[in-house]
Amino acid sequence: MRVPSDIEIAQQAEMLKITEIAEKLGIEEHEVEPYGHYKGKLSLDILHRRKEDKDGKVILVTAVNPTPAGEGKSTVTVGLGQALNKVGKKAVVALREPSLGPTMGMKGGACGGGYSQVVPMEDINLHFTGDIHAITTAHNALTALVDNHIHRGNELGLDVRKLTWKRVMDMNDRSLRQVVAGLGGPLQGVPHETGFDITVASELMAVLCLADSINDLRNRIRKIVIGYTYEDLPVTVKDLGVEGALTLLLKDALKPNLVQTLENTPALIHGGPFANIAHGCNSVLATKMASKLGDYVVTEAGFGADLGAEKFLNIKTRAGNIKPALVVVVATIRALKMHGGVPKDNLKEENTEALQKGLANLEKHIESIHSFGLPHVVAINRFSHDTPAEIEILKEFCHSRDIQVELADVWESGGEGGKKLAEKVLNEIEKPSNFSPLYSLDLPVEQKINNIATAVYGADGVNFSSGAAAQLKKIKEHGWDNLPVCMAKTQYSLSDDPAQFGRPQNFRITVRELRVSAGAGFIVALTGNVMTMPGLPKRPGALDMDVNDEGGAVGLF
Amino acid sequence: MRVPSDIEIAQQAEMLKITEIAEKLGIEEHEVEPYGHYKGKLSLDILHRRKEDKDGKVILVTAVNPTPAGEGKSTVTVGLGQALNKVGKKAVVALREPSLGPTMGMKGGACGGGYSQVVPMEDINLHFTGDIHAITTAHNALTALVDNHIHRGNELGLDVRKLTWKRVMDMNDRSLRQVVAGLGGPLQGVPHETGFDITVASELMAVLCLADSINDLRNRIRKIVIGYTYEDLPVTVKDLGVEGALTLLLKDALKPNLVQTLENTPALIHGGPFANIAHGCNSVLATKMASKLGDYVVTEAGFGADLGAEKFLNIKTRAGNIKPALVVVVATIRALKMHGGVPKDNLKEENTEALQKGLANLEKHIESIHSFGLPHVVAINRFSHDTPAEIEILKEFCHSRDIQVELADVWESGGEGGKKLAEKVLNEIEKPSNFSPLYSLDLPVEQKINNIATAVYGADGVNFSSGAAAQLKKIKEHGWDNLPVCMAKTQYSLSDDPAQFGRPQNFRITVRELRVSAGAGFIVALTGNVMTMPGLPKRPGALDMDVNDEGGAVGLF
Repeated sequence: MRVPSDIEIAQQAEMLKITEIAEKLGIEEHEVEPYGHYKGKLSLDILHRRKEDKDGKVILVTAVNPTPAGEGKSTVTVGLGQALNKVGKKAVVALREPSLGPTMGMKGGACGGGYSQVVPMEDINLHFTGDIHAITTAHNALTALVDNHIHRGNELGLDVRKLTWKRVMDMNDRSLRQVVAGLGGPLQGVPHETGFDITVASELMAVLCLADSINDLRNRIRKIVIGYTYEDLPVTVKDLGVEGALTLLLKDALKPNLVQTLENTPALIHGGPFANIAHGCNSVLATKMASKLGDYVVTEAGFGADLGAEKFLNIKTRAGNIKPALVVVVATIRALKMHGGVPKDNLKEENTEALQKGLANLEKHIESIHSFGLPHVVAINRFSHDTPAEIEILKEFCHSRDIQVELADVWESGGEGGKKLAEKVLNEIEKPSNFSPLYSLDLPVEQKINNIATAVYGADGVNFSSGAAAQLKKIKEHGWDNLPVCMAKTQYSLSDDPAQFGRPQNFRITVRELRVSAGAGFIVALTGNVMTMPGLPKRPGALDMDVNDEGGAVGLF
Repeated sequence: MRVPSDIEIAQQAEMLKITEIAEKLGIEEHEVEPYGHYKGKLSLDILHRRKEDKDGKVILVTAVNPTPAGEGKSTVTVGLGQALNKVGKKAVVALREPSLGPTMGMKGGACGGGYSQVVPMEDINLHFTGDIHAITTAHNALTALVDNHIHRGNELGLDVRKLTWKRVMDMNDRSLRQVVAGLGGPLQGVPHETGFDITVASELMAVLCLADSINDLRNRIRKIVIGYTYEDLPVTVKDLGVEGALTLLLKDALKPNLVQTLENTPALIHGGPFANIAHGCNSVLATKMASKLGDYVVTEAGFGADLGAEKFLNIKTRAGNIKPALVVVVATIRALKMHGGVPKDNLKEENTEALQKGLANLEKHIESIHSFGLPHVVAINRFSHDTPAEIEILKEFCHSRDIQVELADVWESGGEGGKKLAEKVLNEIEKPSNFSPLYSLDLPVEQKINNIATAVYGADGVNFSSGAAAQLKKIKEHGWDNLPVCMAKTQYSLSDDPAQFGRPQNFRITVRELRVSAGAGFIVALTGNVMTMPGLPKRPGALDMDVNDEGGAVGLF
């Protein structure tokens, strides 16, 4: 049977009005602001009103180190949410919000796929409810205010060579990575080197996703470092006095967005920070609200378990006081074959030998989740070219190690295809868990990095470049040493070398630079080069896009 | 009596739900998409469904040449709309959409004022329904696609020194006026000089405001010139093949926004192009839709009658096949005193002599409106420091020339204060009118400019710089000679010299540059310097902004 394309399926969805979805969740009429008939923003008053209610159980969906195409975490998250509802539970899905910029370049959405999607996917993949536009605006307003301060006398003594706050745009535009601005003489500002990141890499995106109230948002914004003085002292938003204006620009963006899946399962889609220089999870507020609205929350974190899950468990749980109950690790036969040495063009061919070899990658991730004290289930996200022999090998591997495993057929069959997985999750989630983050915040930053590298990546240790060593010293001086660490590392390998597949052994991680995200509240440790402004491909997807006579999207996916 | 601040009044408004406002207008439930409880987007299907219905009468509100503070055109527009409803008529207001960027700098909104405002003014002045963000995104997507084309081989042979499509941001950011982008080596694009305009100066804003359907939008986008080849041939969006993608990004922004006034009069707020390099009117679609929904439409155009009204009557009426029925010319005592030679700091003091002298400015605008064949009424927008003697002089001036005139007290008293004006308008509008644009499109561009300069400005003629003369030749060569002209001129004077107040005599206009907006469908004639990216003031308004404990805006206005 041919499964229609994602957009064909999505455009045929029988959606309920968002007011109906809200009503079923016990949300009062004044607590949901509709944005069109099928999207809504939820008032933070809901959290207040339901303060004393019991929290639903939080299920985190993560994955093995992915192939460039991704392993279908969003699809499994949506599918598992649908399946839990199908077996009679009240489950809510909580996902990240996609960035519009990349859709102009590559085909492929961020709303799940097949019969496990969130809808209306056209809207979600384009402007949605404007959250990312609000972040772009607030970010660039801050830059304009900083530049204006310098232009008009620079009372704070900012060194234009040490500005850390650049500009952002929700677009793949490589020409903006490095620019010289302020040209044209004394009426046009002060010349300086700068650049643009894509909006989801803005610290404001991370701030929005970690804030648990409007006041917390304002407090975090206040701490953002915008640059350094000639004396190398940090200058913050507080020094400039514009935290209120930025909070005002973000006040609606802070409210979680309610949509639904193809099977009318409620879904909160809110916030989407980068998973390398930021923590890669949807917002604390969406996750907390979902756990007040449902008995089960299914949520995801970016990239593989070494990045997304590690940050969810070490950063997001602390910021939001969230207690995860279980982790689902998505594994695909194709990714495991890649980890066994198969080149990416041959992943559709059966290769049991490579698969056997690649299982070591899954094994390491399971060990890490285990070390956080959390129950876990492996979900095999089935692809049409997976062979029965391959699936059997993966299952057998899990069984032999007492790891719970289940096939998820959610792409082709929606919630129905995830019922067995749902049953297994419901069974395991009742087992006692003993969650705690990996490290204490009291440890020095270098020790925190070392803990992550050894326990999660399996490294022997960490090397710091001389620049990074000097930055460690500054971090201590400025009182940022007690912040958690956000690792920026390749998603393709457990190591910091994207070519090392499987479960690398006998390696060290090199931290070449440390950056302070004092508003978000973490220290970013960069290993290797991190791209924060993508480019467009030779043949951009934009060439195929249009609007049809019914006003619907064409060529989006 | 102290009139509370605009935001105090706005926050106490008793708004009806937008679905109620829509219902009263006969809009069907599926034709309005709510954006929150008090804003909505209207489906273009309404125009189709009501195709055969009679159109409401269009009343254009314009003004004398304004002071820098503006003369309250929006306030009079809103107040007159409210007053028409108060006297039992079905009137709809159609306004421009404010740009967010400037609100970070200067206090003062674009939603009217006092008891004649559109609400929710906080939302309208901030992100509203995202239209301007959509335009920013579409504009910059096009730039990224152009740069990517050059980066990847430049098949179209674009000369990077002759790119006419820059970038935009909805922010006052002088540092972005002139930048060098594409720095950093062969992986980061091609180095080139460029810059940012504020979003409302984007040709896409003008395009959106002149398009009368999705298909017209796509056709106009297709014609936009992005730059020239080494051989000086124009390259368009069509050559790049991305008109569909840009149309997709703008498909929701094309739908007019429905809100209400403080007195629950329906208001369509949609589109806000610059009034110098563009035509400065709200969208054709909003005006047309308003005339299907109400028996009277009250709408405005930017700056004074020499700019906004001239462009409304010569450009917008043609694009939208709109037949205006009457023009209201807003005059203020303070502006007329300025035209009589009073410095701007002394405008609150009585000065009957200067007022008498300044009336010549009003006189010229009335003559111009008359030459378009339209009935007209002068509305005196009353300020608290106007004296009875001054008002009497203005009235007497009008009476002596058979010009209809009425005091509008709409700022302090809302619709009630505009009832007399409304009655006068209703009386005059029944008189026969004989509207036609000022010039035929068949005339050469230089002749069109000459017609505007002599008939509307009272100039003796037009000088063209040698650069402009060369551009006139190119315009003919490329077949753009039959487009209407959009004059970019100072708003402070009838001449092109902002220091010439009143009714200047014996002067010529100098056109220093011509630009082609082939998508919008006009030739921009620039006289003097035109600022398309504002800067922030020494003490930006952002310093006073915040969110209060109820989630409302603080310090916005």
